[in-house]
Amino acid sequence: MHIGIDLGGTNIAAGLVDSEAKLICKMSTKTNCENGAESIIKDMVSLIKNLLEKNKLVIDDIELIGIGVPGLVDYENGIVKECVNLYWKNIKLREILKTELNNVFEKDININILIENDANAAAGGEYLAGSMKNHKNSFMVTLGTGVGGGLLLDGKIYRGKNGIAFEIGHMTLGENFYNCSCGNNGCFETFASATAIIKYAQKLINEGMNSRIMELVNEEVNKIDAKVVFDCAKEGDKVANLVIDRFVKYLAIGINNLLSIMDVDLISIGGGVSAAWDFFEDKLIDEINKYKLYKEIPLCKMEKATLGNDAGIIGAAMLDII
Amino acid sequence: MHIGIDLGGTNIAAGLVDSEAKLICKMSTKTNCENGAESIIKDMVSLIKNLLEKNKLVIDDIELIGIGVPGLVDYENGIVKECVNLYWKNIKLREILKTELNNVFEKDININILIENDANAAAGGEYLAGSMKNHKNSFMVTLGTGVGGGLLLDGKIYRGKNGIAFEIGHMTLGENFYNCSCGNNGCFETFASATAIIKYAQKLINEGMNSRIMELVNEEVNKIDAKVVFDCAKEGDKVANLVIDRFVKYLAIGINNLLSIMDVDLISIGGGVSAAWDFFEDKLIDEINKYKLYKEIPLCKMEKATLGNDAGIIGAAMLDII
Repeated sequence: MHIGIDLGGTNIAAGLVDSEAKLICKMSTKTNCENGAESIIKDMVSLIKNLLEKNKLVIDDIELIGIGVPGLVDYENGIVKECVNLYWKNIKLREILKTELNNVFEKDININILIENDANAAAGGEYLAGSMKNHKNSFMVTLGTGVGGGLLLDGKIYRGKNGIAFEIGHMTLGENFYNCSCGNNGCFETFASATAIIKYAQKLINEGMNSRIMELVNEEVNKIDAKVVFDCAKEGDKVANLVIDRFVKYLAIGINNLLSIMDVDLISIGGGVSAAWDFFEDKLIDEINKYKLYKEIPLCKMEKATLGNDAGIIGAAMLDII
Repeated sequence: MHIGIDLGGTNIAAGLVDSEAKLICKMSTKTNCENGAESIIKDMVSLIKNLLEKNKLVIDDIELIGIGVPGLVDYENGIVKECVNLYWKNIKLREILKTELNNVFEKDININILIENDANAAAGGEYLAGSMKNHKNSFMVTLGTGVGGGLLLDGKIYRGKNGIAFEIGHMTLGENFYNCSCGNNGCFETFASATAIIKYAQKLINEGMNSRIMELVNEEVNKIDAKVVFDCAKEGDKVANLVIDRFVKYLAIGINNLLSIMDVDLISIGGGVSAAWDFFEDKLIDEINKYKLYKEIPLCKMEKATLGNDAGIIGAAMLDII
């Protein structure tokens, strides 16, 4: 049995995963960022203990513990180099976790512990058990607060020299009306994330356009979220459709850029914004086909991610084979 | 012994390459595009014959003939699917070449014949014998009339599903004042090729700016080339420096995009524009460092390609190992 942990800024989710990449049982707890790394790692061990007890397993039944972390990791050495959301810097996660496991289980634990970036882990999960299954050369684009992703090449996560490969959210696509949190202008995620949708809707409304969106948020422009914009777009609201059309245009440009470089078999679209996939799938495919270089070569498969938050748990649990 | 052929729109260059990827001897002849594929393939066989005679070899001494083609190839089947410059479409290059070799050498020739995109072959050559040597994960960016490139992953050319991987010239970077030949706006090659340099210089001059460039081209704006612009920039000409600064800015954005995705060990810059490498190297590195996401992670190595036109011959000759 394997255990996968998805360490998020809000929750820590842990799951028991069998050798076929099937999620057997999962549990979660709040992430107490303010308590620091050691406390969070203790919470991880508690989750592991609870998972074992609930499933009548002992720690020696576990071959591997994998952890997906929302930041920059040193995969080889099991170190979290930087994780802005958790205020972590150079945390020896593998080492500290091992010590904590030894303490709690009162023995010298010899489990393989692997640490990976969470978006890479999620792509790995989709590859092993979800939308990317059997597509050895494929990638996932995660549309959430930002834009992230993970690339599988020949069935392995492509990490790059420094573990920062496929940081696609910061690919420059053009000029935008607001700067990215990274300091640059025109990053993919400033055009094609939930944040991008919200900011452009707010901009159009603040410039004086009338929209049904404002009724649904009780006239409070700060309450706009991506779901409201999609809901209004489905109803035919003009402003909402301008926002979604712009989102789709730049998502297509970004994906076309990625395809020009990687020419993969399949692309999986995940993250919160993918909830609206049925509404924007056809628009997106039409738009990518408009941009693509070789019109006679069919577009690769485009799928919605199927595992949701479980992808990260499953991918983390199976890091030894991807 | 291997033979590598670089099939260009102007010349066909062929070389004898040893098993250590060393170019022993090369020859070339004009590409008579208007005569069609069969005639060009006959010219290739003449080059092969001449190379053998000059080096006192017989055809059975050759293990492999590799050909780099400026277009879309089906690597598996040895077919040139499309080559706009040569007016080729679905040419069974491997099959026709084999038949022609059989005819000329009056025997059943059993040589491995491999066909590759020319930019991929050139990157392979730089990897085996030039600037990318020993860097298994690296890519080449070729700055010529357009922008092309080739990607090596784990020491192998990454071709992608359809053989169209690393068509980086058509990655969208922003809005530009003229459209790309592909029909899109904002392609990398409309900002960072020799053509881009020429067009922007012409634009500034046509808008009324005075520049030393015009003296050097006898006041004929259509005679501006990239070399003149670099020469004037070195002399301190304002317009020329505006043009080169813009070229460097977008080259940095494009390379930063590629690095965000691939996180490689080394990047090699080749093509005609790389002749001015010494002038723009430092500017380029400063600019990439401005854009890159993780400021604390050092930029990968950046090198000027060292093999020039030989890269394509060497890479083509060694296609069996890359």
